[in-house]
Amino acid sequence: MTGQFLTLEGIDGAGKSTHVDFIRDWLTARGIDVVVTREPGGTPLGEALRALLLDVKSDISLDTETLLMFAARQAHVDAVIRPALAAGRWVLSDRFTDATFAYQGGGRGVPFERIAELERWVLRDLRVDRTFLFDIPPDVARARMSTTRTLDRFEREREAFHQRVRNAYLSRAEADIDRIRVLDAELPVATLQAELARDLGRLLERR
Amino acid sequence: MTGQFLTLEGIDGAGKSTHVDFIRDWLTARGIDVVVTREPGGTPLGEALRALLLDVKSDISLDTETLLMFAARQAHVDAVIRPALAAGRWVLSDRFTDATFAYQGGGRGVPFERIAELERWVLRDLRVDRTFLFDIPPDVARARMSTTRTLDRFEREREAFHQRVRNAYLSRAEADIDRIRVLDAELPVATLQAELARDLGRLLERR
Repeated sequence: MTGQFLTLEGIDGAGKSTHVDFIRDWLTARGIDVVVTREPGGTPLGEALRALLLDVKSDISLDTETLLMFAARQAHVDAVIRPALAAGRWVLSDRFTDATFAYQGGGRGVPFERIAELERWVLRDLRVDRTFLFDIPPDVARARMSTTRTLDRFEREREAFHQRVRNAYLSRAEADIDRIRVLDAELPVATLQAELARDLGRLLERR
Repeated sequence: MTGQFLTLEGIDGAGKSTHVDFIRDWLTARGIDVVVTREPGGTPLGEALRALLLDVKSDISLDTETLLMFAARQAHVDAVIRPALAAGRWVLSDRFTDATFAYQGGGRGVPFERIAELERWVLRDLRVDRTFLFDIPPDVARARMSTTRTLDRFEREREAFHQRVRNAYLSRAEADIDRIRVLDAELPVATLQAELARDLGRLLERR
């Protein structure tokens, strides 16, 4: 039996990473073998491309950036995600294709249909079973982020940008309510964990 | 008025590079401003990806390799080819998308339709005006290549591979006889130059 493929999405500062450990531990305690990974890394090539995209000084076009994102994702899918699912493990990825629709699409204007073409090319028959979208207003997210962290290229971009990203995430969620669960990331962590546990329980039963 | 976009194609050892200078000089002597470039380089990002693809030690999947090829090509198109054509210059590229159909498609089995999807994504309305395909049997090509050169990853692959690449190039040419001119690369250089000059003359008149 193949495993379930879960993804976490949301703008920077929504608190996704806080919940990665919770989900892994909750599933592990119920006998599920979980692989935790993140986009666009997870492979040596993916990490090299991630570094290139975050630090690149030269002007690369938005189309080129989008193709590099999907090249890193293809490496991630082929080397990490598919083998784990085929072995019956569950996969929990910190961001996946929804992030490209949100950041390159909503945030920077790449038409959704062009992103969808690359998504179909890369994923073929692979489907995400559940996405948890941690939703938060950009100003609250920014206030949460520690100023001692070094901000990367995306994080330096403006709040209006993050509002467009948030809106794109929410419109994805509206269009795919069976897959994407929207969580109010301003709620207390314990409340969010209770919601996550309820939904994970349903996924386990459905299996 | 926009310039003309010319490409040179053929397996390694077909002698393409010998003809790059000839074509540039022939056009320059007739008042044409020519930009000479090559695939997948021509930009800092493209050269970085070229190095990554040629020397990569880790197993990257064929799909990932194909996406990286097109990412480098997108950078090349956006930074070099489109601006030159828009400025009325002619562009002469040593390899372009036909090489991906030949090497990744014919040589290594990526379905042509999947390559065509990425080609449409990257090129949009951009069209190659003339392609010169230097055709040669792989054993003749190999005998031509100096053994003092360091062979890269692709060059080390077998002759059967190069025969599949050659066949894919020839089938592209059959399917697009208006664009692709097949030249017998075993002919003397002077004979090939006369053929090139005749065809370049027709392109100049057509302009």
